Amino acid sequence: MLKEILLQGQQAADAALERLLPPDTQYPPSIHAAMRHSVFAGGKRLRPILCMEAARMVYVAPPDAKTASAGDPSGALPPGIAELGAAVEMLHTYSLIHDDLPALDNDDLRRGRPTCHVAFGEATAILAGDALQTYAYEVLARLQCAAEARVRIIEEIAHATGTIDGMIGGQVLDLEAEHTKPDAKTLEYIHRSKTGALITACLITGCIYANATATELQRVREFGRAAGLAFQIADDILDVTQTSEQLGKTAGKDLAVEKVTYPSLYGLEKSVRMADQLITQACAALDSFGARADTLEAIARYLVERKK
Amino acid sequence: MLKEILLQGQQAADAALERLLPPDTQYPPSIHAAMRHSVFAGGKRLRPILCMEAARMVYVAPPDAKTASAGDPSGALPPGIAELGAAVEMLHTYSLIHDDLPALDNDDLRRGRPTCHVAFGEATAILAGDALQTYAYEVLARLQCAAEARVRIIEEIAHATGTIDGMIGGQVLDLEAEHTKPDAKTLEYIHRSKTGALITACLITGCIYANATATELQRVREFGRAAGLAFQIADDILDVTQTSEQLGKTAGKDLAVEKVTYPSLYGLEKSVRMADQLITQACAALDSFGARADTLEAIARYLVERKK
Repeated sequence: MLKEILLQGQQAADAALERLLPPDTQYPPSIHAAMRHSVFAGGKRLRPILCMEAARMVYVAPPDAKTASAGDPSGALPPGIAELGAAVEMLHTYSLIHDDLPALDNDDLRRGRPTCHVAFGEATAILAGDALQTYAYEVLARLQCAAEARVRIIEEIAHATGTIDGMIGGQVLDLEAEHTKPDAKTLEYIHRSKTGALITACLITGCIYANATATELQRVREFGRAAGLAFQIADDILDVTQTSEQLGKTAGKDLAVEKVTYPSLYGLEKSVRMADQLITQACAALDSFGARADTLEAIARYLVERKK
Repeated sequence: MLKEILLQGQQAADAALERLLPPDTQYPPSIHAAMRHSVFAGGKRLRPILCMEAARMVYVAPPDAKTASAGDPSGALPPGIAELGAAVEMLHTYSLIHDDLPALDNDDLRRGRPTCHVAFGEATAILAGDALQTYAYEVLARLQCAAEARVRIIEEIAHATGTIDGMIGGQVLDLEAEHTKPDAKTLEYIHRSKTGALITACLITGCIYANATATELQRVREFGRAAGLAFQIADDILDVTQTSEQLGKTAGKDLAVEKVTYPSLYGLEKSVRMADQLITQACAALDSFGARADTLEAIARYLVERKK
């Protein structure tokens, strides 16, 4: 059941990305080939799935002959939501391309394939990352929801991927941390901003797209804040416990570069317990949604479980 | 008079940038210092000025006790337009930071100062460019015009800075041109997309902000298309005729790397004539605006004249 939902979400996101991204025959072809190389590299589409399932949780389909009356949980997705999911995946991919560059993490392998700069050269990789960010905003500006919702979505996403408590801020601190050995508080800040903020923004913007109330948004934000940190702790754990083949990238890299992680600060066992506690806390924030929150909760538990 | 308008526009853009960009004490400080280093490097703020003056040309201030009745050319700027100007300047600056990187143009000097990667290192420069792009969209999403106008502005700007006939597409072709010696048609395409598209977007979005009609937008688009190409031809000319000190960057660089430019393809004299003809053509597109177009026309002529 959960596997089916994840597969359907992945397929919906893939189809939207395929439809929205220019073909690699589009002039100038090199940049479009580079963008597609990194976007279609076998990603699980976690962020689009979270976006879509958060939207499904709060969405009330308009009443018509075929569906239940307004207010009933129909379990439908708001039309066009996959395009919002595709846009956040473009932003996630842009950040991966730039993170992998020689001047940053200098990774040759991502999801088992050569990284963008290895396949296309550094200049094209920088521009392909830039272009995926640009293109994401073009897609967001054209979403099928009201203009007022679109500008709220754009503001939320831009803030979550920016320098203040957002993705770029986290990346800056992560780079600096390689020399300075951050304490527990700084490490939590890095994780929350580098990956947690965009995870939360996916959930929140899915809900904005689906006309959620302010109270619903607040609860979803609490869920995202706790679950986002849990995912990143799980990611740290994964780097210790999995092989390079399982990861699709170089395993043990955090240890090799003496990077501070949750396992290195707290030990493996305590890290696992912390991730579990955060997931429990996250799910508690969704209590008032009742059974409608089941899918989102199951995804959150699954993402942490599979990483042990 | 013109000098006064240019100075006022520059000051309005600078003030908006100062207000909008996080201070360099904001955590994490390194990224905000790098963003400010490049944004406050003595730019003329040409793009914000074009944006503001295009808005002024079409704007009709709402009637009140103090100003003339609606429909009269009051010469006022729509409130908050400087923030739109600041956002396009952030996008322009992001493109300069990334263009200057070692993997791209490898420039050490920009406007007489060390480029971002020379001053802050390559990783921070990549992220500072990324962040300026991100921050521009956050500012655009919060502009003081109607949400419908904001999404049109965001779509226009994202498209103009993207890969299809936009800034990144032009940059890709420009890089490839270093090896392939483009013909006249390709060179024109590079110029139109690399710099012309954003120039046009500045004018168009200023007009959208000021509630221009579809007919007005069409005329301004024609002006931008011709004037944008003229500016870039003038820039090519400048590289041949000015010293490094005058330019604030390494002069004769195009010649040194055997880059194809308008002077190298057509000769200096014909290039000057082409730029002049394009400016005449640009100004003709604004005929129906009468005296209200005087400032925009004067700026266009000035920008090409000063470069001879």
